[in-house]
Amino acid sequence: MKVYPECLPCFLNQVRKTAKVAGLSDEKTIEIEREVARFIWKELEPDKSPGHNATFVHRIFKKMSGIKDPYKNLKDKYNSIALKLEPFLEEEIYLKAKDRLAAAVKLAALGNVIDFAVPSSFDLEREIKEFFQTPFAYFDEAILERFLVSGKETLYIADNAGEIVFDKFLIREFKERGLKVTLAVRGAPVLNDATVEDAVSTKVSEIVDAIVTTGNDYIGVNLEEVPEEFKEAWKRCFFVISKGQANFETLDGIYDKDIFFILKAKCRPVAKELSCNLGDLIFLYNKHLLDIKERNEEAEEKS
Amino acid sequence: MKVYPECLPCFLNQVRKTAKVAGLSDEKTIEIEREVARFIWKELEPDKSPGHNATFVHRIFKKMSGIKDPYKNLKDKYNSIALKLEPFLEEEIYLKAKDRLAAAVKLAALGNVIDFAVPSSFDLEREIKEFFQTPFAYFDEAILERFLVSGKETLYIADNAGEIVFDKFLIREFKERGLKVTLAVRGAPVLNDATVEDAVSTKVSEIVDAIVTTGNDYIGVNLEEVPEEFKEAWKRCFFVISKGQANFETLDGIYDKDIFFILKAKCRPVAKELSCNLGDLIFLYNKHLLDIKERNEEAEEKS
Repeated sequence: MKVYPECLPCFLNQVRKTAKVAGLSDEKTIEIEREVARFIWKELEPDKSPGHNATFVHRIFKKMSGIKDPYKNLKDKYNSIALKLEPFLEEEIYLKAKDRLAAAVKLAALGNVIDFAVPSSFDLEREIKEFFQTPFAYFDEAILERFLVSGKETLYIADNAGEIVFDKFLIREFKERGLKVTLAVRGAPVLNDATVEDAVSTKVSEIVDAIVTTGNDYIGVNLEEVPEEFKEAWKRCFFVISKGQANFETLDGIYDKDIFFILKAKCRPVAKELSCNLGDLIFLYNKHLLDIKERNEEAEEKS
Repeated sequence: MKVYPECLPCFLNQVRKTAKVAGLSDEKTIEIEREVARFIWKELEPDKSPGHNATFVHRIFKKMSGIKDPYKNLKDKYNSIALKLEPFLEEEIYLKAKDRLAAAVKLAALGNVIDFAVPSSFDLEREIKEFFQTPFAYFDEAILERFLVSGKETLYIADNAGEIVFDKFLIREFKERGLKVTLAVRGAPVLNDATVEDAVSTKVSEIVDAIVTTGNDYIGVNLEEVPEEFKEAWKRCFFVISKGQANFETLDGIYDKDIFFILKAKCRPVAKELSCNLGDLIFLYNKHLLDIKERNEEAEEKS
C-alpha cells in the first residue's frame, strides 16, 4: 500500500513516542523531529508503503539519539507479561475451545491487540475474555483449512514482542496437522518488533522447525532486501501467515503467493486498504482481498 | 509558550484536516504536507508559540492550495447553528442562572468546547446541559468582579466562528455593569477563527462599542504586528478577555496587562502550561497563573 496523508504526521508522532520511551529531552526530541521533517520533505517515497518510509524515520532516530534499541526494556517487559498469561490462555481459552484452529487464530490476533501496558493480570484476563466476544470483519478459516496439508511448510512472519507468545497456539495447530513451520522475525531492532532474541526468550524458537530473519531493521518485509534463507523459505512455503500492520503494508499487493493476514486495523489508511472499519479485527486471505478490491473498483467505475 | 514535541506532528495534522475540509486530493494534500515539513525543518522557531509557527503552516496551505478561506462554509454553518441555539441558551441557561456572571463565563467557555458538527439540536441541548455539570479547573470569578468597574473598558479577544455567539452573554454582563467593550477578531481568514464578517453576521457587532482586528491571519495575537487601533484598545483597556488556545499560547507570559483566559485545554502542551489536566475547563487570571508557575518552579528546585 501507498502513503496516505495521515502517514506524514504519524511519522513525526512515532519519533515523539519513541523519544518518550527512550527518555529523551524535549529539545533533543524536537531536533530529531526536524531532521525527520527534512526526510519527509526531500526523500519520502509516497508510492512505497508507510512501513518502508517509517524504516528511514526510525533509522534517523537511532542515529541521532545513539540508541540502537530504544524499545529493549519494553520488549522484555511485554514478553514477560505474555509468558505469565500463557497458562491462562492455554487452559481457559485454547483447550476449552470447540474449534481450536479458530481459537488459535483469534489468540494470534489478540496478541496484536492486547495492551500489555495494562497493569494487573486480572484486568488483562478480563480484556482477553471481552476480546473473544468481538467478531472479526473477515475470518477466512475455511480457506486456511484447505492449506493445512501434512508435509507442507508455512512461513509465519511475526510482529511484536509479547505478541509472539500468542502466536504459539497457531504454530502448534500447524505442527499438529503435520506442517513444517518457519518463523520469520526482524533482523535488527526496530520499534517493539520481535527479533531472534525475543523468539528464543519466549521459547517460540523451540516449537518451530526453523527461524529466519528479514535481514535488517526494515519495518515489514522488503523482498528485495531479505537474506537468502528468507528467500528460500518464501519460495519453499505453501502459504504465508503475516501478522500485524507493517507486514500487511509491505506484503499487500503480492498475489503470486498465498498469504493470510492477521491484524487489527489500527489506522484509517490500513482500514481503507482492507475495506473495513477502523479498529476491525482481520483474518483475511490475500486473494479474497483481491476480489474485494476488484469489486470496489468496478463499483467506483459504475458510479 | 514554546513549541512542544507534540506540536510538530500537529502542524502536519492541521494541514491534513484543512485539506479535508477544502476537499483536496490525497496527492495534493501530501504535496502541501511535504512543503510544511520543509518549513518545520528549516524555519520553525521552537522558542516562539505553537500559534506563531502554525500561522506560517496555514499560509503555506493557502498559497499552495489557492484557497484563501478553506473554512468559509464551515464557519457560516457554525454561526447559523449557534444563532439557532441562542434563544435556548438565553432562556434555559442564562436567565435562569442564580449567578448570571458565572453562567455567562461558562457559556463563553462552552462556545470553545461545543461540537457544532453534532447533528441535531436535541443532542446539542443535551450536550449543553451536561457541560454545565462539569467543574472548571480554575474559576477566577471573584478576581474578575474586582475589574468590573463602570466606565472602564475591556478588550474581548474572540476565537472561533459559532463560539462568538456564545460570547454575547459575557459581553452583555460587561455592558450591564457600565463597561465599554471592544471586540477583537482576526484580520484575515485562518482556521475557523472569527473575522469581522462573523461578528457582523452573528450581530455580536451590535452589542459592542467597537471592533478591532488583529490585522492579519496570525493565529493568536502578535502584539508587534497588530494595527494601531488594536494597540490603542490594548493600552486603553482595564483588562483583557482572551478566548481559546491560540490566544492563550501567544498572550501567555505577558504580565504588564490583566488578562483572563477562558478556554478548554485541548492538548497536553497547553494543559502543561496551565498546570491542569488535558480536557480541563479554564477561567484563569494571568497573575494567578504566574503564582502557580512560580510555585511549581520552587517545588522543582527543591526536589
